[in-house]
Amino acid sequence: MKNLKGALMFAQSGGPTSVINASAAGVFIEGLKSSAITAVYGAANGIKGVLDENFYDIGKEDKKELNLLKYTPSSALGSVRYKLKDASVDDTDYKRILEVFKKYNVRYFFYNGGNDSMDTCNKISKYLATSGYDCNVIGVPKTIDNDLYGTDHCPGFASAARYIATTVMEINLDAKVYDTPMVCVIECMGRHAGWLTAASKLASVGGLGPDLIYLPEVDFDVDKFVEDVKAVCAKNGNKCIAVVSEGIKNKEGTFICELVSQGARDSFGHAQLGGVAATLANLIKEKTGYKTRGIELSLMQRCGAHLASKVDVEETFKAGRAAVKAAVNGETDKMVCYKRKDGDKYAIEYELLPLELAANTEKTVPLEWITENNTNISDEFIKYALPLIQGEAKAPLENSLPRFAKLKKVFVEKK
Amino acid sequence: MKNLKGALMFAQSGGPTSVINASAAGVFIEGLKSSAITAVYGAANGIKGVLDENFYDIGKEDKKELNLLKYTPSSALGSVRYKLKDASVDDTDYKRILEVFKKYNVRYFFYNGGNDSMDTCNKISKYLATSGYDCNVIGVPKTIDNDLYGTDHCPGFASAARYIATTVMEINLDAKVYDTPMVCVIECMGRHAGWLTAASKLASVGGLGPDLIYLPEVDFDVDKFVEDVKAVCAKNGNKCIAVVSEGIKNKEGTFICELVSQGARDSFGHAQLGGVAATLANLIKEKTGYKTRGIELSLMQRCGAHLASKVDVEETFKAGRAAVKAAVNGETDKMVCYKRKDGDKYAIEYELLPLELAANTEKTVPLEWITENNTNISDEFIKYALPLIQGEAKAPLENSLPRFAKLKKVFVEKK
Repeated sequence: MKNLKGALMFAQSGGPTSVINASAAGVFIEGLKSSAITAVYGAANGIKGVLDENFYDIGKEDKKELNLLKYTPSSALGSVRYKLKDASVDDTDYKRILEVFKKYNVRYFFYNGGNDSMDTCNKISKYLATSGYDCNVIGVPKTIDNDLYGTDHCPGFASAARYIATTVMEINLDAKVYDTPMVCVIECMGRHAGWLTAASKLASVGGLGPDLIYLPEVDFDVDKFVEDVKAVCAKNGNKCIAVVSEGIKNKEGTFICELVSQGARDSFGHAQLGGVAATLANLIKEKTGYKTRGIELSLMQRCGAHLASKVDVEETFKAGRAAVKAAVNGETDKMVCYKRKDGDKYAIEYELLPLELAANTEKTVPLEWITENNTNISDEFIKYALPLIQGEAKAPLENSLPRFAKLKKVFVEKK
Repeated sequence: MKNLKGALMFAQSGGPTSVINASAAGVFIEGLKSSAITAVYGAANGIKGVLDENFYDIGKEDKKELNLLKYTPSSALGSVRYKLKDASVDDTDYKRILEVFKKYNVRYFFYNGGNDSMDTCNKISKYLATSGYDCNVIGVPKTIDNDLYGTDHCPGFASAARYIATTVMEINLDAKVYDTPMVCVIECMGRHAGWLTAASKLASVGGLGPDLIYLPEVDFDVDKFVEDVKAVCAKNGNKCIAVVSEGIKNKEGTFICELVSQGARDSFGHAQLGGVAATLANLIKEKTGYKTRGIELSLMQRCGAHLASKVDVEETFKAGRAAVKAAVNGETDKMVCYKRKDGDKYAIEYELLPLELAANTEKTVPLEWITENNTNISDEFIKYALPLIQGEAKAPLENSLPRFAKLKKVFVEKK
């Protein structure tokens, strides 16, 4: 536990979320207050900004804009997907990071991201420790996929869940207006973990849940799917709303969406990268003659900040602050995580988890929460997820459109 | 002008909108207050409910739920797509409607819909007048497409426009997070009129507008599109957001989305009904090697009531009330429409337009508002549309999810 004096470096990595910048706001606002921190830097495009010596001087930003970051979706500093090699194989990047940190006296490093980003953060943390350079390194979790190990839930998941639940309710009303058959297949993100797809179940709290839900945690059988839809239609006035994960696979382990891209060509002769929703909707149309519609919630589910959950925004903001406080108190090589308190009233406390435990471990939906022959989600999930989507927290409106943060993004002069 | 005493029949038709039920609420609440109206009926699934004698007794509904209709998307009574034959060719349906109206003493008939629905309404109006049966018939406009003739704008358009503008802003932030090339193609509804696609331009008011916009009002050239995207990428860090209408056609008059469905087959051997966004995104990927994403705003743009415009909700509610007031005052054979008042401050007044003028005439985006070699929209459009998307009006929240109206839907006993 070392109490250090020096600059703070923060970077965002991986796919953005509606609330990822709330963590940035937390880190920046807490960092600018701390007497141990001599400068606050935000790396442009994740670790690449460190390697390229491209980072912004956060001290030059308006406080008002930093606060608006809480309600501004998508990585404000820019993101990156960049996997560091093992230092034992090639330590070029690590040496460069150390060089940059020394040059700017960076003593606090915060990396904000999901599984892969925590792997990066862990590797950097270990390398710096081995090199003898004093720098406290803390991972700040982020992923709509909700699949990070060791935390009750992940910053960003709840806002995406609230978007999905609200949207499924609305689609449910829309898709059933005619007295003719209609099957609607909705696709949610999550290639390996079905948390977001499961979140569609929350729409049932408002009485407008899906009829069928398919998670990637269990094998997907195309023929069974057709039978499931037919069974729902038979008892439901020939209407069915099914929600599927983009990551559903057949028992041979092939993604349903990969099956598509192998076969399909559009009129220009190009491979047709259809989503799984469109594929399954077409399949049902073929098998039943019913009108069908495939809907991909696409980027909207992860950037729909106008439907962010207040619980998520506030927890995520505080996660950023907690990370800085912990580092200033001498903690290092940890990831901030949420522990749900016991008791009926929902509350969390912040804990620290060794980074190596957080890196590269995926937490999937418990199989016992997947019910009704793998077509539904249990009430246990609702009990888990409903407290997370509570409250509204969104950008103020200008002209009835969101007023998102506008950062100056003044680059720190290269030394 | 006849002042009649009898029952009111209201029906919803065509594709739903976020605010279509606000008109229903207006008609119902005003109808239940009127001493000239002896009963208020809501037809199940449009004119089909009249033909089948399936209609709900609105007097049996809770007032609170009727009020919640203002914020509940999608046709609460059910909708229909049913084109009446010309009475001169086959008057079976008309005779049946007259029979039902006589049986239940229906003296006020309101049909809520777009172009096709106003055609239906017009035909019924003319038939009833010819038959000598006294019934005041008023059309209540509704269409996200905004393409009805004779009205400044259409109920439902502004809420869809606000959804599109907000969502394009959010996607714009999300799609540009990496420092690698990214082209995103977003598809809006509107097969013949580009109003909704043009609405994406409103995102520029928040500083996050699209780079390219393509309306169905002008021919779409695939090769030019590729060049347009490349030009934007060249000056824009290899990033481009393009918004296209589902209805864009090449100069031979073929829908781009039809080009797709002719060619593509998925792995099940079925025709792949890809959207135009996915097709164009794949095309750009092929031509540039860039990462691309096609996003279809699908049903969400017309059912996303959580982003409804207050101006739209209130105007639409009042349009329903205005229809009833006019009919009770003896007006018939008209459609309610909006006239924008002169002056800097936005305001409208309600007018009545002869139904035959409203039926089957499409109003498209003025060609002079389409600029920059058919890739952008002028400020004139913003001046026109921005006042319409102002204010928030949405359902109250329960568990932080929308609490939509729950109607009892008590069928009127068949006589």
